[in-house]
Amino acid sequence: MRCLSLICLLIISLSAHSAKLPGCSGREAIGDRGVIVERASGSVVIVNSTSQELLCRVEGLGDLSHASMVFSRDEQYAYIFGRDGGLSKVDVLNGRLENRIIQAGNAIGGAISQDGQIIAVSNYEPGGVRLFTADTLTALATIEAKTDAFPEGAKVVGLTDAPENQIIFSLYNAGEIWQASLDNPKKPEIKKYLNIGSLPYDALIAPDGRYYMAGLFGEDGIAKLDLWYPEKGVEKILGDYGKGDKKLPVYKMPHLEGWTFAGDLVFLPAIGHHEVLAIKTTNWELSSRIPLLGQPVFTMARPDARQIWVNFAFPNNKWLQVIDTKSASVIKKLEAGPGVMHMEFTPRGEHIWVSVRDENKVKIYDTRTFELLKVLNVESPSGIFFTARAHKIGL
Amino acid sequence: MRCLSLICLLIISLSAHSAKLPGCSGREAIGDRGVIVERASGSVVIVNSTSQELLCRVEGLGDLSHASMVFSRDEQYAYIFGRDGGLSKVDVLNGRLENRIIQAGNAIGGAISQDGQIIAVSNYEPGGVRLFTADTLTALATIEAKTDAFPEGAKVVGLTDAPENQIIFSLYNAGEIWQASLDNPKKPEIKKYLNIGSLPYDALIAPDGRYYMAGLFGEDGIAKLDLWYPEKGVEKILGDYGKGDKKLPVYKMPHLEGWTFAGDLVFLPAIGHHEVLAIKTTNWELSSRIPLLGQPVFTMARPDARQIWVNFAFPNNKWLQVIDTKSASVIKKLEAGPGVMHMEFTPRGEHIWVSVRDENKVKIYDTRTFELLKVLNVESPSGIFFTARAHKIGL
Repeated sequence: MRCLSLICLLIISLSAHSAKLPGCSGREAIGDRGVIVERASGSVVIVNSTSQELLCRVEGLGDLSHASMVFSRDEQYAYIFGRDGGLSKVDVLNGRLENRIIQAGNAIGGAISQDGQIIAVSNYEPGGVRLFTADTLTALATIEAKTDAFPEGAKVVGLTDAPENQIIFSLYNAGEIWQASLDNPKKPEIKKYLNIGSLPYDALIAPDGRYYMAGLFGEDGIAKLDLWYPEKGVEKILGDYGKGDKKLPVYKMPHLEGWTFAGDLVFLPAIGHHEVLAIKTTNWELSSRIPLLGQPVFTMARPDARQIWVNFAFPNNKWLQVIDTKSASVIKKLEAGPGVMHMEFTPRGEHIWVSVRDENKVKIYDTRTFELLKVLNVESPSGIFFTARAHKIGL
Repeated sequence: MRCLSLICLLIISLSAHSAKLPGCSGREAIGDRGVIVERASGSVVIVNSTSQELLCRVEGLGDLSHASMVFSRDEQYAYIFGRDGGLSKVDVLNGRLENRIIQAGNAIGGAISQDGQIIAVSNYEPGGVRLFTADTLTALATIEAKTDAFPEGAKVVGLTDAPENQIIFSLYNAGEIWQASLDNPKKPEIKKYLNIGSLPYDALIAPDGRYYMAGLFGEDGIAKLDLWYPEKGVEKILGDYGKGDKKLPVYKMPHLEGWTFAGDLVFLPAIGHHEVLAIKTTNWELSSRIPLLGQPVFTMARPDARQIWVNFAFPNNKWLQVIDTKSASVIKKLEAGPGVMHMEFTPRGEHIWVSVRDENKVKIYDTRTFELLKVLNVESPSGIFFTARAHKIGL
């Protein structure tokens, strides 16, 4: 009887879900779809960025705090990296969980290889990187991030794909950057850059895959690797980038995936300070500091590089500011709502989707008029990922 | 009886086509599909760039010489611009012709607006630009390219989309560039740049939508419009770019869609000369001339900007050369076969697809090893277009 009630409850809950959302039929083109993480409930919603609708929900994905994802080259599958070491393969076309494994105790992001055949996950506990087949999530290899100082294996952060079927990542406690060729994924070939700086905590790769840059937590500055000239090794730039002398409390470390290349400038969220730094990529020196209302978290460039949208750490996390890249100054301040977590532009930049966690809303703005176009109900939304990322280097 | 025979023939021919190719089922993700123009037969084949297979063929598209296409934002539809003024809407998911109109007597390319709702076509005969709904190909407006000197309307070339829901195009015989906002598509708002140079014959827009540049046929040099500073008007750069003093016979005008931005250089096919020019985008001056084996037609950058692939005009049109952007020198020469027409990289750059018209083949190469991976049978192939273009500015 109790069992029957449970089944009834389950049926009610399932039909409630299907009644609420129109569903993912499996007979549609999905080039304009997106996946939004619902961090509190371990689920994602699949959305259509043209109709601006929620289509369906996929549940049972574990701990999705700080979750990110990458897409298969046909855009059908999202590979979702959970904080709990879970790796979930979600079918974005049909709206269902295709496969799920727990691959480590504590993980922090991943990548898909250029050929689309390998999923790489970077782990905290145990450290290192694990490689899986994109098809069946079968384990291919483990890259143990062992060094003399860290014989148990270092924590791995800042993992990204790179051109020519490579991945690059940083060893947090060991202060190294490793570059791995996946041509033989069962035995990846590793090139190591030692002593790159103290405690690289996150990293990014430029949109064309040329520069890999890791932010340092243990000292000021940024470790930069030019993949066109790997023989030059890792170079330290921006010696004054970091917490600096003032030692302000850092409420939230900025996300380096959010570094933004626009023209010959790269815009970096300052650490702890209320500003974004504009850096000239010709000489990697500071061009200007743009004052902001709080500590920036993500700085995202509109695809035409004319605007940078910035969100903020607590206690300013209800605001957005928009920087005009031409004048390198703030041109707009928007109150999006409590707990702005992430932003994603539509691929050609006309709209931006903003997740407002504490209001359980995703808000869609016109990037030209700043008009609020639509509000969607999403439970504790965090990361927003459109399927067009499938075709980009480093996303 | 004769009618019945014809029907039988038709059935045989149709089943032959379906027997040959696996088909487009309508139940698959199509983020890795592409459409290849078969110029002689007025048809296209739809391909899968992961399995490297032909999937299905769509016929009845009219004169497809010099045909190009753009994609809807969900990637489902290709809008194909034929030389005969035909505008065809092909369903890439289900592999069928969805709609087709003859919108002018003689046309030369088109664009899709940033919001995905408007298709624009540039015409020779009569001149001007026509706008249609992407949904049903219903006429919205005609922009008559009339000037004092050309009261009948000028021929329009170099039409491209631009950020903020605009299109930009050049008036060939009138020597003007027009910029149109499509916010009110029934009454587009036009900004005109006059006296931009003699006979702009083709144009391109930079990948971020900032620079619009038109090549001139009537004089040397390039007309450059910086859309970040439209108030500065059109500027003439590269006074020595063009046919020059030698007046070599020009076997085929290069395609300016093929201009290639890589780092702070743009690579332009020289007109008539056997070279590609590398131009610094910081000052728009010549950086170097790269000697080649023939007159270049397309110069295409691998998505990571590490290589430029070049094809050639008759009589050198069986060759490809690959330029290394780091050293600005040729690193590879490949004999692809007679009549190389076009090239398209997979979105993350690991492969390149090459159409070899006179051999009725499309050849797929690994861009790192230059290995020939696969040969597909396609009838008189010309343009190759992957669906990932849906998400790019100016493609």
